Amino acid sequence: MNGELRILVWNEGVHEANNEPSHIGEMYPGGIHGAIAGGLRSHLPEADITTAVLADADHGLSEEVLAETDVLLWWGHIAHAEVGDAVVERVHRHVLGGMGLLVLHSGHFSKIFTRLLGTSCSLAWRNDGQRELVWTVKPSHPIAAGVESPIVIPEQEMYGELFDIPDPDDLIFISSFAGGEVFRSGVTFTRGKGRIFYFSPGDQEYPVYHHPQVRRVLANGVRWAAQPDVVRSAPAVTNPARDWFDGAKQH
Amino acid sequence: MNGELRILVWNEGVHEANNEPSHIGEMYPGGIHGAIAGGLRSHLPEADITTAVLADADHGLSEEVLAETDVLLWWGHIAHAEVGDAVVERVHRHVLGGMGLLVLHSGHFSKIFTRLLGTSCSLAWRNDGQRELVWTVKPSHPIAAGVESPIVIPEQEMYGELFDIPDPDDLIFISSFAGGEVFRSGVTFTRGKGRIFYFSPGDQEYPVYHHPQVRRVLANGVRWAAQPDVVRSAPAVTNPARDWFDGAKQH
Amino acid sequence: MNGELRILVWNEGVHEANNEPSHIGEMYPGGIHGAIAGGLRSHLPEADITTAVLADADHGLSEEVLAETDVLLWWGHIAHAEVGDAVVERVHRHVLGGMGLLVLHSGHFSKIFTRLLGTSCSLAWRNDGQRELVWTVKPSHPIAAGVESPIVIPEQEMYGELFDIPDPDDLIFISSFAGGEVFRSGVTFTRGKGRIFYFSPGDQEYPVYHHPQVRRVLANGVRWAAQPDVVRSAPAVTNPARDWFDGAKQH
Amino acid sequence: MNGELRILVWNEGVHEANNEPSHIGEMYPGGIHGAIAGGLRSHLPEADITTAVLADADHGLSEEVLAETDVLLWWGHIAHAEVGDAVVERVHRHVLGGMGLLVLHSGHFSKIFTRLLGTSCSLAWRNDGQRELVWTVKPSHPIAAGVESPIVIPEQEMYGELFDIPDPDDLIFISSFAGGEVFRSGVTFTRGKGRIFYFSPGDQEYPVYHHPQVRRVLANGVRWAAQPDVVRSAPAVTNPARDWFDGAKQH
Repeated sequence: MNGELRILVWNEGVHEANNEPSHIGEMYPGGIHGAIAGGLRSHLPEADITTAVLADADHGLSEEVLAETDVLLWWGHIAHAEVGDAVVERVHRHVLGGMGLLVLHSGHFSKIFTRLLGTSCSLAWRNDGQRELVWTVKPSHPIAAGVESPIVIPEQEMYGELFDIPDPDDLIFISSFAGGEVFRSGVTFTRGKGRIFYFSPGDQEYPVYHHPQVRRVLANGVRWAAQPDVVRSAPAVTNPARDWFDGAKQH
Repeated sequence: MNGELRILVWNEGVHEANNEPSHIGEMYPGGIHGAIAGGLRSHLPEADITTAVLADADHGLSEEVLAETDVLLWWGHIAHAEVGDAVVERVHRHVLGGMGLLVLHSGHFSKIFTRLLGTSCSLAWRNDGQRELVWTVKPSHPIAAGVESPIVIPEQEMYGELFDIPDPDDLIFISSFAGGEVFRSGVTFTRGKGRIFYFSPGDQEYPVYHHPQVRRVLANGVRWAAQPDVVRSAPAVTNPARDWFDGAKQH
Repeated sequence: MNGELRILVWNEGVHEANNEPSHIGEMYPGGIHGAIAGGLRSHLPEADITTAVLADADHGLSEEVLAETDVLLWWGHIAHAEVGDAVVERVHRHVLGGMGLLVLHSGHFSKIFTRLLGTSCSLAWRNDGQRELVWTVKPSHPIAAGVESPIVIPEQEMYGELFDIPDPDDLIFISSFAGGEVFRSGVTFTRGKGRIFYFSPGDQEYPVYHHPQVRRVLANGVRWAAQPDVVRSAPAVTNPARDWFDGAKQH
Repeated sequence: MNGELRILVWNEGVHEANNEPSHIGEMYPGGIHGAIAGGLRSHLPEADITTAVLADADHGLSEEVLAETDVLLWWGHIAHAEVGDAVVERVHRHVLGGMGLLVLHSGHFSKIFTRLLGTSCSLAWRNDGQRELVWTVKPSHPIAAGVESPIVIPEQEMYGELFDIPDPDDLIFISSFAGGEVFRSGVTFTRGKGRIFYFSPGDQEYPVYHHPQVRRVLANGVRWAAQPDVVRSAPAVTNPARDWFDGAKQH
């Protein structure tokens, strides 16, 4: 089944276009999306993995594209406001209909994430290149399979609590930072028929998406979020007749 | 503390204004909001309980009013679309800041509820006056305190699964209907600093808000959702200095 | 991977040995375990599926057998007390170490289930052959994949709330019965590294394990609970040196 | 209602009897239980607060005592094995029946906690007097009311993940330690009708139970866990007649 998975890595692509920070081109020559896609290809060699950016027509997120996407990964930071509301509604509808969604790092403030979660998704942050340790707290979860605990990330932006999210379905990873802050860095949600995974490690200044353990987590997340056999339709109101199920066929 | 609780019962008030159904005036002479407020007064005699409707200026939900409200109850049905988006954003902000919210029955499709939950909040329904049984499944929850299980409601509109909501923090009540459908009829959520309780029994055609057990549940819900001592401010992004907490006073 | 799954269906086998009820032999000629195993084979043709009963040496649950088992299914009813405590401790250890466990119907009162959950696992019951409807409330869960909602089971023993279990990780199915009772009939838990699924439909008097939808649920449950790649060791206390992870290899 | 709360602080009392560590008498002249009780009295001046130790007859936990206890606090460390199994079963039954339970620090390995949770409750530990920071991650929970985030504890034993517990009902606090480890340090569970709160800060070597914020957390925990109006009976199996509820009185 993995051979048929259709994965779309979306990145606003603005840091790359602006060459900010100045080492981003050296660190991520194919962009952040390119690095993420590369990591996924190493773990999911038979999957169909493509990328799209904000500057593409329809941000690369047309109805046709989404209908052919099993899992969408989302990276954004400084251009959240430029994502069109109609596109956000479209992605929202596809998630409720069963498309998987991985929201990464600064995507916590993306329109699609706050739309799905209903909270501010605010947090504490400080960019001073601290060491981040990512500890597994739910080892039975498929996303934790084969992942070392802790993952040691030598330098990272700090993300700290309070992370204003709803109680997640599953809390898989908790991070600590050298300054003492903690963060629920790997959490899952379901909305409608769709599965959502948020994972915070990853930034435009540090080569986190080259980290072997981070790449493993993202590949696990994609496998977990994918439901290629589900009919893509969001739950909708129904007005069934009494005893309607008596006539339904039971296989 | 209950003596100081400030409770606002909001009702769109359109069924009453239109006299639809024709027996609504006899059943609820003070409107649905009046019946709900009356039930709360019997359980919370020292609370400050007021009502508001859609037709009021600002729908009766100005910044000043919300700032003085510990718990807001919300009943709406046929006029969800007429609720102003600015008012919805205002209520949303107050919930994230710690105001309690009880969403009732057809309020599942209100703008504020779908905004807070992020899903379609759709469900199955059929209005054929069936018996509803409301079973307690989490007896340790404060909202279940003193509530009989099952609550027997002789005639009700059927609400059935799939109820498209996120996994609730707590599932307290599950209903069955004479036709065989089931419904998660009493569920809690937290969003930001706010506590939310959804309770489905209650309709414009049946005298459900006169039911002693339903009134008890709503009073319990108000007590549970109220946080009068919390500073009303939604979580917000912060950028603290390293070791900022070393200088903070510890009481 | 499914081709390598090693599944063990355990049944106390006492109803069959006693020929109680008298039609059990006609209904389940290979015993309840035989019927369950047959259903699993139709969905998981490459899996290695075996059965064991209480009367076997060590109840068929020796250390060697459990070490080679990815998922254990448990059916018991009138002989819970005859299951040896040492066997229960052994199964408990293997579940914490990552073995999947499916507990079926009257297994709610088995020693292993109450040991893992810590509650009484009591419920309401009435054996009057009522229709059971099994409604899906978490369609995104792998165990609900392809399952019709509701499953219609023409005749069943009633199991009703209050079902005294801890809050499950996931609530997937809720049943209603013709008498109006409801039951959380499909719930998951994790304990240690192990995944547990409880599913209530199934009884010694009714041919429930021949129902195509029930068989699908059990096969889904087995797939979900299996972790064949996990090292089988229960979490244990550790006393690591400070900075121990600096020397650990990161792949 | 708080004026009538009946609170029992239990401590094995072995460190105190053995004078290990040698400064325990100076740090906790009334024992660990005395310090905890003192903190509770400052927050709950009208409550009836008593203490008991392992060496008492019946460990001070007779049926009569438990029947008159709304909330039991449990501190144990080196003498878990000496707690009688009959006493553990008695406490277990009272928790299922609605008695509140606060389990503290090294009580994670107590018989009553592992009995209620069903897991190993193992963790990582290192006693090198590190700074612990306790961060609030669910500010809407009553136990977090008025608590500073983070609580700064200058010196503590390190407790780290993996903490082998079931998914808690609510995750309220996460701690980090100077060495980089994290720990789910404040978690709630419900079992039967009873509410359980585990809080890890506190040790026989450090004066943690004198910390004003820790004392506030424990007082909040007691208020939250208390259900003085609940009839003390554990859930039990029932076999109701069909339509039994038609004859039940609805208030």
